[in-house]
Amino acid sequence: MNTAPVRVVIHGASGRMGQALLRLAADDPALQVVAAVVRRAPAQRVIDGVPHFAASELSGVPAFDAAIDFSLPDGFDPVLALCLARGAALVSGTTGLDAAQQAALAAAAQRIPLTWATNFSLGVAVLAELVERAAASLPGWDCDIVESHHVHKQDAPSGTALTLGEAARQGGAEARYASLRAGDIVGEHLVQFSGLGERLELVHRAGNRDIFARGALHVARQLPGRPPGHYRVRDLVGTPGR
Amino acid sequence: MNTAPVRVVIHGASGRMGQALLRLAADDPALQVVAAVVRRAPAQRVIDGVPHFAASELSGVPAFDAAIDFSLPDGFDPVLALCLARGAALVSGTTGLDAAQQAALAAAAQRIPLTWATNFSLGVAVLAELVERAAASLPGWDCDIVESHHVHKQDAPSGTALTLGEAARQGGAEARYASLRAGDIVGEHLVQFSGLGERLELVHRAGNRDIFARGALHVARQLPGRPPGHYRVRDLVGTPGR
Amino acid sequence: MNTAPVRVVIHGASGRMGQALLRLAADDPALQVVAAVVRRAPAQRVIDGVPHFAASELSGVPAFDAAIDFSLPDGFDPVLALCLARGAALVSGTTGLDAAQQAALAAAAQRIPLTWATNFSLGVAVLAELVERAAASLPGWDCDIVESHHVHKQDAPSGTALTLGEAARQGGAEARYASLRAGDIVGEHLVQFSGLGERLELVHRAGNRDIFARGALHVARQLPGRPPGHYRVRDLVGTPGR
Amino acid sequence: MNTAPVRVVIHGASGRMGQALLRLAADDPALQVVAAVVRRAPAQRVIDGVPHFAASELSGVPAFDAAIDFSLPDGFDPVLALCLARGAALVSGTTGLDAAQQAALAAAAQRIPLTWATNFSLGVAVLAELVERAAASLPGWDCDIVESHHVHKQDAPSGTALTLGEAARQGGAEARYASLRAGDIVGEHLVQFSGLGERLELVHRAGNRDIFARGALHVARQLPGRPPGHYRVRDLVGTPGR
Repeated sequence: MNTAPVRVVIHGASGRMGQALLRLAADDPALQVVAAVVRRAPAQRVIDGVPHFAASELSGVPAFDAAIDFSLPDGFDPVLALCLARGAALVSGTTGLDAAQQAALAAAAQRIPLTWATNFSLGVAVLAELVERAAASLPGWDCDIVESHHVHKQDAPSGTALTLGEAARQGGAEARYASLRAGDIVGEHLVQFSGLGERLELVHRAGNRDIFARGALHVARQLPGRPPGHYRVRDLVGTPGR
Repeated sequence: MNTAPVRVVIHGASGRMGQALLRLAADDPALQVVAAVVRRAPAQRVIDGVPHFAASELSGVPAFDAAIDFSLPDGFDPVLALCLARGAALVSGTTGLDAAQQAALAAAAQRIPLTWATNFSLGVAVLAELVERAAASLPGWDCDIVESHHVHKQDAPSGTALTLGEAARQGGAEARYASLRAGDIVGEHLVQFSGLGERLELVHRAGNRDIFARGALHVARQLPGRPPGHYRVRDLVGTPGR
Repeated sequence: MNTAPVRVVIHGASGRMGQALLRLAADDPALQVVAAVVRRAPAQRVIDGVPHFAASELSGVPAFDAAIDFSLPDGFDPVLALCLARGAALVSGTTGLDAAQQAALAAAAQRIPLTWATNFSLGVAVLAELVERAAASLPGWDCDIVESHHVHKQDAPSGTALTLGEAARQGGAEARYASLRAGDIVGEHLVQFSGLGERLELVHRAGNRDIFARGALHVARQLPGRPPGHYRVRDLVGTPGR
Repeated sequence: MNTAPVRVVIHGASGRMGQALLRLAADDPALQVVAAVVRRAPAQRVIDGVPHFAASELSGVPAFDAAIDFSLPDGFDPVLALCLARGAALVSGTTGLDAAQQAALAAAAQRIPLTWATNFSLGVAVLAELVERAAASLPGWDCDIVESHHVHKQDAPSGTALTLGEAARQGGAEARYASLRAGDIVGEHLVQFSGLGERLELVHRAGNRDIFARGALHVARQLPGRPPGHYRVRDLVGTPGR
């Protein structure tokens, strides 16, 4: 296909995810980063060919097709308003939104295509779909979820494990959870269905955190041009985008 | 549900699968074995409450809803004819059918509901479906299939591995194969999708051979009453039947 | 080697383990079952070529090299006394021994070679040794044990998991435990050592319960002729005996 | 312990391993990098507190306890000579040494403690030891090695898989190999021992390449003060060094 690249704004560009997004987008001919938005006005206005803007200058960013937002709750309202004003898609992984912000997100989904998610890994998105399907196909089988993460992770089970458990529940199975905290494991999730004499094990292994940025970029490539709505990552898998 | 049990004929009842079918069906209140067909007229006509018939007496079996056939190619034609004559479903795992028999099977699927398969494990059936879906959802990811079986298994890759590879191909991925022959492993199949920085592993582990009989009984419960057609095992999963 | 077979007595021959021991010993040219001891005098005194004795007739069993005891606590004292009297080895998996019986066992180890264990699987014995060694070699790594068993198993963690944890402790690591109860899993134990950027996973999978009988027979072949002492299963692995 | 840090020279400091060594050594209070040696004289003589030297200036490096060499074959002779002259330990992962260089290495092991290895991961070193032991303890069991690496790896089986196979052979087992090339897998090695009804799986997973630098630094901390000799990595595990 000889289509124009998707023009994206990276909002929250100085964070770890923002930096990964900038680095990976630079290698993707299907994307053009037209603006990187950081908290404070940067000394250097163009870095590696990408114009940088302070959060206070947000309204001045050039035309774009999708904003990718990994910032803080207080930065969320302006970027959502910008996307609505420009009729652009929104991809957000900002956590800690309050009820009003969640309501605003739901309202915005009536007008623009958007995705808000806590885990943008494509593999996890596919796993959730497989889990729901397996649960629906294997009634009466036991379902167990074992998740492993580095020792610094405080919450357990992981949010992703809970999402997978919810997928199992949608399929009719009730999952039990076990959590391991060991070494510097990036993240592993095993969903195991046990019947009599046989077993199905579905495992996702994350090797590094780039997969989350890669997934967000994939979503940013997929959303523009779609009807308004709140798309899950798993609704958008399946189109080449590696 | 307060429904009458499905009446089944076990054809090939003296073989290993036939014996497992008789043993497991006896414990299943949703099934009633109305006849067991063996090669030669047995001395004892009723064993554990199940009437036994010689193959030559096949036409004399009482009314039934489904025949389960794990016999030899020369026993296949009579049981297929019987199912057609009675308007009953056929579940067959008999291997080595010739082209004429396969054509007869295809023709019969116009008139009765039937399933012919080499692997009746429900877990494998579900795995095949998940593999096709994962392949379709993860374009560009590498796909590898590793299968492990006991040292006496001669063919490699296993028929099940090839079926899983075909499912991957339907989803758009080309699988590579590796085969291990070790100990007395009943059968394990790993289908692995590898992207950048992440991986999805889908594994089926067979613990014993009862799962094949269990799956065939599940199919026998599901087929009667359905429209004519050739149903795959994976078309019939999802209704309680453990 | 052209050595005479080891003569064994199977004590507790009517139980599940006893039956497995009789079945597997019959196929082992290195063993000769000279007596099977059951609770009550059997109607048939010789079954499949093996003389059967009631527990009350224990003193009448012919000469033997090792007794294999999988019975109940009230049968333990007589078989221990018999081994002492005959100077034969004892292999016991009888659980529920009281303090006096354990003391008697310890005292007997001064006079005959014996093994008392809760898990006779050779693979688990080797795993325990590997775990101790890995723990000693990888100071500072996290150690997690995940065990999976069928849904009917009540205790958690499994006794084998605790034994593996003790092996880790001997090596200097403190293990944490997770337990899954699912389907009809015979028994799986994962001991995982996690460092920075790398991981070592040691897994034992039990496919059926014959492995416990096989391991007890292996021990029975190994003990006779050794100096008195309490041998662990892992002290006796490494001599061909599959 | 209140001991002085081990003084190390990083030889081949501009390569990928050299950079990782410098980065990780900087965080290790038990190590002091007294010199980094690069091919050509650097413009900046001290970087992050570490004095840099051109290869031609090698003789001028200050006093040190161990040199860590990840360079090219033509840089190997000078660093070996330097270690001999100074009576310091040598840790080398330089590949492609010719027969004369290997002979020089063997001769040097008479005078200084040294380690030359292709894989410095501590986990792999421990795995090799466990494999040898398991093989020796489980005669008659089948042994299979499955290794997985990124699609750019050309050789198969991997050098590490061959090392593990050699460890199995030392223990009396003959391993068969399977190789997967998929995604960007850093490196995984499964050594599987299969008996009747049970299985032991020993797995090493590498999450990133820092583990090789970490292992080399560990060896550099362990070698100084030991008698002359060629130490394998697995001879040096077991002393805290995470």
